[in-house]
Amino acid sequence: AHTHDYGQVIALNRDILAGNNITASMNRRFLEGRKVLCLNMVSSPGSGKTTILEKTISTPGISKKIYVIEGDQQTLTDAIRIGKTGAPVLQINTGSACHLDARMIESALKRMDPESGSVLFIENVGNLVCPAMFDLGEFRRVLTVSVTEGEDKPLKYPGMFGTSHLCLVNKSDLLPYVDFSMDDFIRNAKSINPDLEFIILSAKTGEGIDAWYRWIDDQYSLSRGK
Amino acid sequence: AHTHDYGQVIALNRDILAGNNITASMNRRFLEGRKVLCLNMVSSPGSGKTTILEKTISTPGISKKIYVIEGDQQTLTDAIRIGKTGAPVLQINTGSACHLDARMIESALKRMDPESGSVLFIENVGNLVCPAMFDLGEFRRVLTVSVTEGEDKPLKYPGMFGTSHLCLVNKSDLLPYVDFSMDDFIRNAKSINPDLEFIILSAKTGEGIDAWYRWIDDQYSLSRGK
Repeated sequence: AHTHDYGQVIALNRDILAGNNITASMNRRFLEGRKVLCLNMVSSPGSGKTTILEKTISTPGISKKIYVIEGDQQTLTDAIRIGKTGAPVLQINTGSACHLDARMIESALKRMDPESGSVLFIENVGNLVCPAMFDLGEFRRVLTVSVTEGEDKPLKYPGMFGTSHLCLVNKSDLLPYVDFSMDDFIRNAKSINPDLEFIILSAKTGEGIDAWYRWIDDQYSLSRGK
Repeated sequence: AHTHDYGQVIALNRDILAGNNITASMNRRFLEGRKVLCLNMVSSPGSGKTTILEKTISTPGISKKIYVIEGDQQTLTDAIRIGKTGAPVLQINTGSACHLDARMIESALKRMDPESGSVLFIENVGNLVCPAMFDLGEFRRVLTVSVTEGEDKPLKYPGMFGTSHLCLVNKSDLLPYVDFSMDDFIRNAKSINPDLEFIILSAKTGEGIDAWYRWIDDQYSLSRGK
């Protein structure tokens, strides 16, 4: 909904995006000050982000305290699921809006007050288009794609693939039952974003979870300039 | 991106939506005049809409001539796939926008000039949020959901489930391999939209395709007031 063929709207959207970028930079500065690693989790609806987070929190593997901000149009479903793992969680309902923005995160950070040395996951609204344009102040953007979604997605959603740092290729347990060429998928994604990293994962069987933990640890060090 | 917490934007979005609704009504009137059944196909990315369309066009089952308008942020991939079936197809690339709007369809209709007695499928951008708000002038909205996406989607994306007429529950061939309760899914969807119809489908095995053809035939008659 961000670049219509209406001059007025394009101008206004530029203002919105510029305003959002300033708030996002402030959020990033706050998190740096607080020594909190912030990861913005984006994906299509139903790619398995919440299940990955449940697994990430409940399996001993990350020694840091974990906080979660959940974004959905409606429902507390995901916050309830995450709450059961014991992690502090805050749900943002966006109503008819299609993405989280930096102001929502700014106010969530005030309420959450995450402790120093922790990891904050932001689970964005399931949408491969709009969240790509809204920096939240995260250190890294993590894009989850399920192997059921097809290998052409990077080419069809270049904004999201172009702005993400890591791609979790989830539901690898379904690979025997779907037509999905991992080579084609990775080649397509790298044609959009040569720096994108990949972890092939199954939240169900646990494949790739160790690599995911190691990646988080590495980012935690990098976010502290180490 | 349609209802931010910015007063100015909300007002402007009301104007955009009102303008879109007028153009959509004009499109609907044109299609009614021309006796063309128009179906707006919406879904998450990767739920299998294009494969369903390929199957729908290439299997003898619908006697009407079929036209397709393809909407994607980027690429001609889907138009090329549909083109191979022999159906006239037109690709709209929305750039950074997250949905098709009625003006795009208005200009596509001029170029396509579909013949009387035909069926026009519009394959919208894969997105469960924004396309819900943009009437294109279709007679019916068809929502495709894959069984890999989980049964909570109707509650999390009420706008899309609330405005659709038929739900194609696709990839039923994967049911043995995923945790998906069809009963829960249908109950959740009906709690949002009691009038929603359902067809359980597999574009891969052909399950449900006959019911889908019958539904299209019924809508064709209904669209002509029969």
